[in-house]
Amino acid sequence: MALNKADALMDVAIRRSFLIPSSEIYGSPSGFFDYGPVGAAIKRKIENLWRSEFLHKEGFHEIETSLIVPEAVLKASGHAENFADPLVTCSQCKNKFRADHLIEQSENAKKEHVKAAGLPPAQLGELIQKYAVLCPQCKKPTLSDVGWFNMMFRTNIGPIEGNTAYFRPETAQGIFLDFARIVRNYQSKLPIGIGQVGRSARNEISPRQGLIRMREFTQMELEYFFNPKDQSHPKFGKIKHEKLRFASEEGQPQYIEIEKAVHTGLVANEIMAYFLWKVERLYLSCGIPKEKFHFRKMPKEETPHYSKGNIDLEVETSYGLVETVGVAYRTDFDLSSHSKHSGADLSVFVEGEKAKVVPHVVEPSMGVDRLFWCVLEHAFRGKTPEKDWEWFDFPPAIAPYHAWIFPLMKKDGMDEKARQIEENLREEGLTVYYQDSGSIGRRYARADEIGVPYCITVDYDTLDEKSDKHGTVTVRFRNDGKQIRVKIGELSSKIAHFVKEGKVRDD
Amino acid sequence: MALNKADALMDVAIRRSFLIPSSEIYGSPSGFFDYGPVGAAIKRKIENLWRSEFLHKEGFHEIETSLIVPEAVLKASGHAENFADPLVTCSQCKNKFRADHLIEQSENAKKEHVKAAGLPPAQLGELIQKYAVLCPQCKKPTLSDVGWFNMMFRTNIGPIEGNTAYFRPETAQGIFLDFARIVRNYQSKLPIGIGQVGRSARNEISPRQGLIRMREFTQMELEYFFNPKDQSHPKFGKIKHEKLRFASEEGQPQYIEIEKAVHTGLVANEIMAYFLWKVERLYLSCGIPKEKFHFRKMPKEETPHYSKGNIDLEVETSYGLVETVGVAYRTDFDLSSHSKHSGADLSVFVEGEKAKVVPHVVEPSMGVDRLFWCVLEHAFRGKTPEKDWEWFDFPPAIAPYHAWIFPLMKKDGMDEKARQIEENLREEGLTVYYQDSGSIGRRYARADEIGVPYCITVDYDTLDEKSDKHGTVTVRFRNDGKQIRVKIGELSSKIAHFVKEGKVRDD
Repeated sequence: MALNKADALMDVAIRRSFLIPSSEIYGSPSGFFDYGPVGAAIKRKIENLWRSEFLHKEGFHEIETSLIVPEAVLKASGHAENFADPLVTCSQCKNKFRADHLIEQSENAKKEHVKAAGLPPAQLGELIQKYAVLCPQCKKPTLSDVGWFNMMFRTNIGPIEGNTAYFRPETAQGIFLDFARIVRNYQSKLPIGIGQVGRSARNEISPRQGLIRMREFTQMELEYFFNPKDQSHPKFGKIKHEKLRFASEEGQPQYIEIEKAVHTGLVANEIMAYFLWKVERLYLSCGIPKEKFHFRKMPKEETPHYSKGNIDLEVETSYGLVETVGVAYRTDFDLSSHSKHSGADLSVFVEGEKAKVVPHVVEPSMGVDRLFWCVLEHAFRGKTPEKDWEWFDFPPAIAPYHAWIFPLMKKDGMDEKARQIEENLREEGLTVYYQDSGSIGRRYARADEIGVPYCITVDYDTLDEKSDKHGTVTVRFRNDGKQIRVKIGELSSKIAHFVKEGKVRDD
Repeated sequence: MALNKADALMDVAIRRSFLIPSSEIYGSPSGFFDYGPVGAAIKRKIENLWRSEFLHKEGFHEIETSLIVPEAVLKASGHAENFADPLVTCSQCKNKFRADHLIEQSENAKKEHVKAAGLPPAQLGELIQKYAVLCPQCKKPTLSDVGWFNMMFRTNIGPIEGNTAYFRPETAQGIFLDFARIVRNYQSKLPIGIGQVGRSARNEISPRQGLIRMREFTQMELEYFFNPKDQSHPKFGKIKHEKLRFASEEGQPQYIEIEKAVHTGLVANEIMAYFLWKVERLYLSCGIPKEKFHFRKMPKEETPHYSKGNIDLEVETSYGLVETVGVAYRTDFDLSSHSKHSGADLSVFVEGEKAKVVPHVVEPSMGVDRLFWCVLEHAFRGKTPEKDWEWFDFPPAIAPYHAWIFPLMKKDGMDEKARQIEENLREEGLTVYYQDSGSIGRRYARADEIGVPYCITVDYDTLDEKSDKHGTVTVRFRNDGKQIRVKIGELSSKIAHFVKEGKVRDD
């Protein structure tokens, strides 16, 4: 059976050490993936790119908070009560299913285009009766009452039962909890940005679509705290005439000038607009083509009551459109809720204000894994007459290695020389990898297969003191296979320069 | 009440945004700490230093595996059965305690120097009776039977109960699970190194000593897989005449030549010796003085039955000697055990061998948090006549910021110029931070207080076209407070050069 496009790409990703199904030798529980050496290198580069763009260059703070969080925190945030999916159990086989999905996929309900998502358990139970929805295993009307299933992984802190805690369902809460102390210690004024990169976990009833809906994943979240009386952004002037791609209500995306998007209310304020622009830049830097993603304003009925506007980023993938980023104007909901539940004062002093202010928050939040998958999808290249192998066209800045390095043959000192260059380039901070098995053509192909942008080869001329090419090596470009000769002493600066420029062909 | 040295340092660490007690506004469950902006920056630099030294420069692989691990994995590794502490419950107040600790600290047993650690529950129960050990809360002989408490955080995957899983107690297991696929994909030959940096968790009965015994922590673990018939290391020749500091059996540390340590059997083989040397280098790079740490060979009765030698690193801290690194020769225990439990073949092809070989493993394993604490302890400096404030003498490579940047005053264009330099240095990859509040002296002090090695100041001369100092700024060195003038265009390369050199004073 031919694999569909997504499955075929996952197969490539696993064979080439991008991904490894977690605990594979024990049968791989669904919803978990490990990153192999190639994938982990790309993931780390994406995370560092985010750090650079969303924190470092903005002068924002990065923190690292605990993954195990006591119940009190998640009661205040609403997760303990509301972070749940509707679950229905088969009274015969005892299997459990997402109730709303089951209804929508059942034959009778399908005919009438029934929408079940978002309905409370009682109504879902009625729909199961009405449309005689069967258990997908037993093929019988044996589905019992519908209830909520909380999607957090639950555990207990210490030996005494009752100290309930959860694996955090998002990294954001840690930022809200630490906010007051950071402001106090830094004697900071608004606006302040605090972000973090880290693992979160959601106990999905039915994880699916590879990296898209996982039970454990990595988030990159930034909370931008500002005075609600000042909705401007200092860098707005620089970007306001740029255009972003928005999905219209009819679905056809169109380019809209940022200033106009704010003016017409499509985007709530300058701050939201600025971060949308940052998100677009990040996606472009990761090699996702501009015409393959767009922003979508969430309709009011799909945003939480406290929100002043949520805008998602959607990317075209072989799973269809996938939401990969959410930029949300969360107002003061989180800080006020934690203040109420904990009794702590989370307001800050603002010059010119009589009372202390509870800041508003704009939150650009994204998953690393989904972005990683989009990067794979859009960098993947099939066979062509020029390249008889499948390869990846990653931007050099996020490629798994800066370069691979080969001796033309494993003899006459070429291997020692290549090893020596390898060591020197590593000392200079480049990620390189030495390979000497197989023909040189096969090695080029293998480098292409994981998207290495440059291959360095030591050949006879490199070592031949009589040759005018003595002391030089070849650098082969991934995309067109062309080669240039570079002096060994200039290699690291040349490669670093190519990476910075994003150069992947000899032109 | 005066704080003891460790508590005083923790107080400094919290006031200056190195650390934040997790969920502080909800009362901070014990055993959890967040890293504030200053601490997170240092922690990340330590992790990247480890990556560079233990993986990158060695040509080893880095992976990232799931934190939530199914029970089958931890049955094979032995954790599900053996990773437990003895627990005793008070039948009256229902509090739970570490049984062995309680006995050793009880008055009657103390007099006779009773050792309870490592004893099975039945014997601990007898000792509680014999020495009439009281509940520390009720002060009565109300302690009930002793049992084991498994130290892993337990949870369940998916909605159906019985899919038990745990928050991983170590990062190493993920490496063993992924080993076979990596070898296969890379067509690798032994030796192979695979490492990872990540969170682990242990549900300690009584977490204590700040970062030393936490319930959630970050590990940096490397598994070096090799053919047991070849116990050599290719770089041994380069380091064999260096000396390492070992604790002797009498306790007095002494410097021993590496070659001799291997020759006498103090260190099991060249591979172990090489990684001990790497550990020493890392600790020195982090600013821990050579005379403040030493290696200690674990006695046979304290190492697991399968081990061919465990050597710990111990560091002097205000909590006393703390074990911060373990280098273990684990033989083929882990791979063979996973092979047996999963049925997967985890042997590899070795040229010249008839049968496939199950590799042996040497594992240098360390905690980031303990190292971070050691860094704080040994970099902390009290007030002196020259510096009327407490400060940190971090090596520039792991300092939280490369530099802080100030305008002498917030007027006459000095602030705009400083902002512009800030932005340029950030573009060049330096971590810098702009400060304009308080006197310049106060700002220098604040930078010293978190160990920033360089302060850059824009003054009137910087902007004065008639001055011979036009276009230059001052760079102040943290340790001696001396200043030099540097051209703006040369700032980033000078600072980068100083960082590389570790320069912290003007000499």
